[in-house]
Amino acid sequence: MSSARQFLPVSQAQAPFFAGVDLGGTNIKVGIVDDLGRPLSWLSIPTETEAGPEDASRRMGAAVAKAAEQAGIPVNRIARAGLGTPGTQDIPAGMLLDPPNLPGWKEFPIRDRVSHHAGLPVTYANDGNAAAYGEFWVGSGRHFQSMVLFTLGTGIGCGIIIGDQPIHGEHSHGGECGHIMIDYRDESRLCSCGARGHLEAYASALSVVRRTEEALASGFKSSLSPRIDAGEELTPLMIAQEAERGDALALEIVLDTAMYMGIGIVNLMHTIDPNGVVIGGAMTFGGHDSALGRQFLDRVREEVRRRTFPVLAKFTTVDFAMLGGDAGYIGAAGLARVAHRQSLQGAAS
Amino acid sequence: MSSARQFLPVSQAQAPFFAGVDLGGTNIKVGIVDDLGRPLSWLSIPTETEAGPEDASRRMGAAVAKAAEQAGIPVNRIARAGLGTPGTQDIPAGMLLDPPNLPGWKEFPIRDRVSHHAGLPVTYANDGNAAAYGEFWVGSGRHFQSMVLFTLGTGIGCGIIIGDQPIHGEHSHGGECGHIMIDYRDESRLCSCGARGHLEAYASALSVVRRTEEALASGFKSSLSPRIDAGEELTPLMIAQEAERGDALALEIVLDTAMYMGIGIVNLMHTIDPNGVVIGGAMTFGGHDSALGRQFLDRVREEVRRRTFPVLAKFTTVDFAMLGGDAGYIGAAGLARVAHRQSLQGAAS
Repeated sequence: MSSARQFLPVSQAQAPFFAGVDLGGTNIKVGIVDDLGRPLSWLSIPTETEAGPEDASRRMGAAVAKAAEQAGIPVNRIARAGLGTPGTQDIPAGMLLDPPNLPGWKEFPIRDRVSHHAGLPVTYANDGNAAAYGEFWVGSGRHFQSMVLFTLGTGIGCGIIIGDQPIHGEHSHGGECGHIMIDYRDESRLCSCGARGHLEAYASALSVVRRTEEALASGFKSSLSPRIDAGEELTPLMIAQEAERGDALALEIVLDTAMYMGIGIVNLMHTIDPNGVVIGGAMTFGGHDSALGRQFLDRVREEVRRRTFPVLAKFTTVDFAMLGGDAGYIGAAGLARVAHRQSLQGAAS
Repeated sequence: MSSARQFLPVSQAQAPFFAGVDLGGTNIKVGIVDDLGRPLSWLSIPTETEAGPEDASRRMGAAVAKAAEQAGIPVNRIARAGLGTPGTQDIPAGMLLDPPNLPGWKEFPIRDRVSHHAGLPVTYANDGNAAAYGEFWVGSGRHFQSMVLFTLGTGIGCGIIIGDQPIHGEHSHGGECGHIMIDYRDESRLCSCGARGHLEAYASALSVVRRTEEALASGFKSSLSPRIDAGEELTPLMIAQEAERGDALALEIVLDTAMYMGIGIVNLMHTIDPNGVVIGGAMTFGGHDSALGRQFLDRVREEVRRRTFPVLAKFTTVDFAMLGGDAGYIGAAGLARVAHRQSLQGAAS
């Protein structure tokens, strides 16, 4: 696991290209990526879940062809496609099982149908693991041998990469780290999955809103109140704005979120012990470009340091992700590249 | 990660043997194991920490020779030795750094010194990972592709095996799962490592005793009290005995321990998603051979089921370990065997 990354010698003149497909509940992002992980073109199409998975598979195949055309790459130079989808799924079988984010798409052989419509072999992964591989390949984890990605959004996504491979798990549930427990008590917070005490119930966007509502209901003063009273919807963005304007409650909500994330990160450090843990997703409070984002990250790091061992506190990197919403399709393309290289090595030996 | 286990064809007539060394704070267990994981001989020598690590390394080398002699195996038929030690350590460098269980043994190149004295190449691992590999190779995990072992004792040890390899971690802290947090609160229980809320602070033997003391101090009636009043020391064994005799408090302490373990196990299932999680160590309440042990295991499984996803609840095995105190040296020998086979494959390609 600790060996240096292996690269086959490849003549750039003959270097293959890869397609990446990131299937979400609302949109599908499709891109063409070169052998060094540089995106050459990408496009987004609506998922249209109600039209069903076969229709979407057909449109994903067409989108790969269109993205290749946009990039000026003949399709026969694309060696393989990668596909990331939400769970539940059966990775070795290439099946979507019963994904909550894709209602009605039950027991569908998505890998092989996308392969059929794209005319390419397809490597299949969980969307969290695909995004993690993107950050590992060419993002914040590009110097790491192993990495964990947490994506903060409505829920908390996660992916784990060790030794150039995602931890798919034996039942396609590897890296479901939004659902690790950080509070064993019966009265702990309820997660969207129905269980209690999960990290997601404390640090997701939904939880940020819920914790703020609870604080306001219990009488905390906040500059959020007049905006809510004026009819605005309470969102993490509004909370971030008021935190930046100096509202004490809003800032506390943001920094409590950092504390919970620090605990989740420590649990991964004491399990996987990766080179680094990377935080991405829609709710990073502006990331490095914002004073609030930097304050959030500082607090995450502080919480990690005070809860872990000296060696890990010193050497484990904790940082924001770099690739934003492109991590998914880039990572899916990267996993296709890993599979392609393994097939070349297999053929050569 | 999901491929079938790979076995090289090996003529049994020429099959190599392996030595395993399990270095603990009190004793060192040394054994000779054949290519199928069967122990042929083993012996235990005192660690004598005060004599220092060079002296112990010399005695470990001599013990390997003695165990080989007992097994009737010429030393030149032993292909390699495996060594498991407590942390802190630097696995790639083969160094003990500053292990709390081996006071004074600082910054010592234990792998190379044992190799020198044994006259064998040595594969080095954390003792938790070595024991996990033993259970994975020939114990409760022998049918698994990936596995987690928790050892319940004074502390909580852990090891993680994925795809025939331990998760050593990038800073030699992989599988420190006794120190995952299951309670984020500032007032959570204090761990022996100095941090709060760690699993070990809730489910170790130390915690079992402490939780019982707290319950007795707060006025709970128990058949433990007369024994303590008579001068007996409160131990997990005494608590198990009184639980078996029907004492409600003692039973509750045991079953609460099962609940905490269930939570720890769920966190590993939602991270690694292994085929199975195995519980070993000195405090398994009699294991399968005892009604209390079976009741403990049933409660662990129940807690896991109600906190995890349906697929994992259905398919993930949770069971006791099989190898007892032999897991460490057998697993160390098994890791030596993995390294030996890799060196053969390297030489052949």
